[in-house]
Amino acid sequence: MRQFRRDLLEFLRIPSVSTLPEHKQDIRRAAHFVRKHLLQAGLEGVDVIEGSGHPLVYGEWLGAPGKPTILCYGHYDVQPADPLKEWDSPPFEPMIRNGQVYARGASDDKGQVLANIKALQVLMEAHGRLPVNIKFLIEGEEEVGGETISAYVPSHRQQLRADAALVSDTAMYMPDTPTICTGLRGLLYTEWSARGARSDLHSGLFGGVAPSAVFGLVELLAKCKDSEGRVRIPGFYDTVEAPSEAERDSWAGLPFDEDEYRSGEVGATTLTGEPGFSVFERLGARPTFEVHGIAGGFTGPGAKTVIPAAATAKVSARLVPRQDPATVLGQMQKFAAENSPPGISVEVREVHSAPATLASPNHPIIRTAARALSEVWGRETVFVRSGGTIPVVGDFQEHLGIPTALMGYGLPDDRLHAPNEKFSLRNFQMGMASTAKFLELLGDAALA
Amino acid sequence: MRQFRRDLLEFLRIPSVSTLPEHKQDIRRAAHFVRKHLLQAGLEGVDVIEGSGHPLVYGEWLGAPGKPTILCYGHYDVQPADPLKEWDSPPFEPMIRNGQVYARGASDDKGQVLANIKALQVLMEAHGRLPVNIKFLIEGEEEVGGETISAYVPSHRQQLRADAALVSDTAMYMPDTPTICTGLRGLLYTEWSARGARSDLHSGLFGGVAPSAVFGLVELLAKCKDSEGRVRIPGFYDTVEAPSEAERDSWAGLPFDEDEYRSGEVGATTLTGEPGFSVFERLGARPTFEVHGIAGGFTGPGAKTVIPAAATAKVSARLVPRQDPATVLGQMQKFAAENSPPGISVEVREVHSAPATLASPNHPIIRTAARALSEVWGRETVFVRSGGTIPVVGDFQEHLGIPTALMGYGLPDDRLHAPNEKFSLRNFQMGMASTAKFLELLGDAALA
Repeated sequence: MRQFRRDLLEFLRIPSVSTLPEHKQDIRRAAHFVRKHLLQAGLEGVDVIEGSGHPLVYGEWLGAPGKPTILCYGHYDVQPADPLKEWDSPPFEPMIRNGQVYARGASDDKGQVLANIKALQVLMEAHGRLPVNIKFLIEGEEEVGGETISAYVPSHRQQLRADAALVSDTAMYMPDTPTICTGLRGLLYTEWSARGARSDLHSGLFGGVAPSAVFGLVELLAKCKDSEGRVRIPGFYDTVEAPSEAERDSWAGLPFDEDEYRSGEVGATTLTGEPGFSVFERLGARPTFEVHGIAGGFTGPGAKTVIPAAATAKVSARLVPRQDPATVLGQMQKFAAENSPPGISVEVREVHSAPATLASPNHPIIRTAARALSEVWGRETVFVRSGGTIPVVGDFQEHLGIPTALMGYGLPDDRLHAPNEKFSLRNFQMGMASTAKFLELLGDAALA
Repeated sequence: MRQFRRDLLEFLRIPSVSTLPEHKQDIRRAAHFVRKHLLQAGLEGVDVIEGSGHPLVYGEWLGAPGKPTILCYGHYDVQPADPLKEWDSPPFEPMIRNGQVYARGASDDKGQVLANIKALQVLMEAHGRLPVNIKFLIEGEEEVGGETISAYVPSHRQQLRADAALVSDTAMYMPDTPTICTGLRGLLYTEWSARGARSDLHSGLFGGVAPSAVFGLVELLAKCKDSEGRVRIPGFYDTVEAPSEAERDSWAGLPFDEDEYRSGEVGATTLTGEPGFSVFERLGARPTFEVHGIAGGFTGPGAKTVIPAAATAKVSARLVPRQDPATVLGQMQKFAAENSPPGISVEVREVHSAPATLASPNHPIIRTAARALSEVWGRETVFVRSGGTIPVVGDFQEHLGIPTALMGYGLPDDRLHAPNEKFSLRNFQMGMASTAKFLELLGDAALA
């Protein structure tokens, strides 16, 4: 374990920030770090796959014919670290305090992906072999859209063929509570562009007769939801299914203080969202319509009396299973065409999209994962859904036809994407043990 | 006239752009140009008044005791010239083509203010005296908010005491149609700041439960007007009066092609605004609610899934007579407090304001101005209202208690604030004659 911790600190010292061009060499260093450790774990065919974006790293071990094949995924890139001054210790000089390692990428995803690599190494060193076949695919663009991997998966179906995927890039519900995330919402991200008059006009000369692109877009967006937060775009909820009885029961049993959540994690005077659904449902099992940003007209200091000719907004919908991103895009486009106010035209363009994914807690692989977690942690595994999106899980589902076991070893207070990101060293070790146990049980089950 | 044209070209060569610090010396040069020509016209006590902003220029001639005193106003500063590449000749190298002089500031307001100065010079040279008492006050901040003059007027009531003001900074309704603008709308310019959660949140983790400041502001703004363009803020229209029968008749008689106006000047697929009011009424006699700009959240290229914690909008209301800016501000603040969606607080802050002004066509000074214009142009003078705002006219009304004769010599196609601004040399000469005639008639009337 001591050596594995040293490896983790070395990994965390590489500032592999994927969105900043000045870190291109660090990205490469991180990819080669991963390559080295896949080799150390005894994988074969280990390769840094160069392409137009940041490289993928691949390795495999296929010495267990007749046993299942598991496709492991993770990412070696990290979010930018700013604002730097809010870090208690420098983001790329990992510090251990109270059993937590503080560094950018500690939990998202370097600590988790290294736990999985080291689980393989431990098994290999103990038995000279692995209990199942393994394919390991690691990307360096998860924080910037993942274009390379989402092109790679459909064009390498044969190479990546597997029975299930294992992804450790989520969080446990609370400390010492082994957790499987069974659902991820999808995402349709769009840009709405409004046009009014031919050019900006003076509001003194034309105010009262000229259409305003900013106000037109405001009017259209406001129509997209009712005052209680229901999306008013026709068809939007048509294919949305209620969560299963078993899931609802599981959620109802989780300890949760809504008022503490509201004032603590959300930091708002009230929670919002669709009436009639619990917080868990609104976060995991209901789609959303969110305006991430809006810009148009004059917004500098002081005053300028312009009637703006153009305005844009960034709008996304988080999608739930059976909501097709292309269908929802069409619904948005139709709604915009039919509801834009007179004199205003609004174009809705897709930026990117990913479907939701949902795994049944009764799927044999998920059941085995839950059993492994329960055995290692000595506690019943809980099933949750995440409101977020991991597009590669949708790609695995769509192009490889396999479910993903989302066995996350992060914690809710790990501060992903924020200053003072951390990862629990206990979870690093327990995660390693959990992954090893999962693979062992899979190997045993296949023999039985 | 030849010399006066040369003077005009010299004035136009000074790039006195008030908003750009690099033109500070040009501003000073323009002020001293004005000073020189006030002296040439025979005014006394001519002074460049330095203060914290751009200087005012003042001069007077008080040698006609018993006669009325007229306070003339104009401005020597101009708008920026960009986009430069859209000019057919350089903005500060005035060119005469087809009887028009092309240059930034030609019509707004250098050509018009110089016509008035030269009218005084002509009268002085012809008679050795002026027919009335004159006080001339010229500012250099009209295009940047006019702070200096609006502080100067109330603190120099005695110095500026007069029977009426004369302002040539508006346009004639159409060529060869002498025009008096009897009404100017006021302006209440505000900034609306919305706050939601304590900080930006991730829409995957919190989408469905967390309030969005951008969407909250969008919802609030959309509520401020109904779908037909009526302002829904309670009390907003309470003090708004219908224009007089005489005004309506005058407007109905003006030649106007709504479809040509829509496609040509406005450049929109449809005109908007309150149903039941003509274009003239919506532009001049009805208040507006306009969103000049909005900003919040992520608006860069690509995608970022943030739930924004803050958003702002620039919002103004053009006001009509008897609408008090402070009252309307209070109405906006109350509306925002009562109509902001749950979890969102919106603060409405005044940036600046000016009340509307309205002069009766039957006021003796306005009647005299109309008679002067009709005699010089050989056509009946028309009365219009402008939708714009000239704050100093409100200051004259409020602090000096005097009406303003808005005798404008610009034309609707002079392209103020836009590339290829121009001023008709015929209007320069006829304007000079009109102002001289106005002052003569005022002097005669007082004798009668």
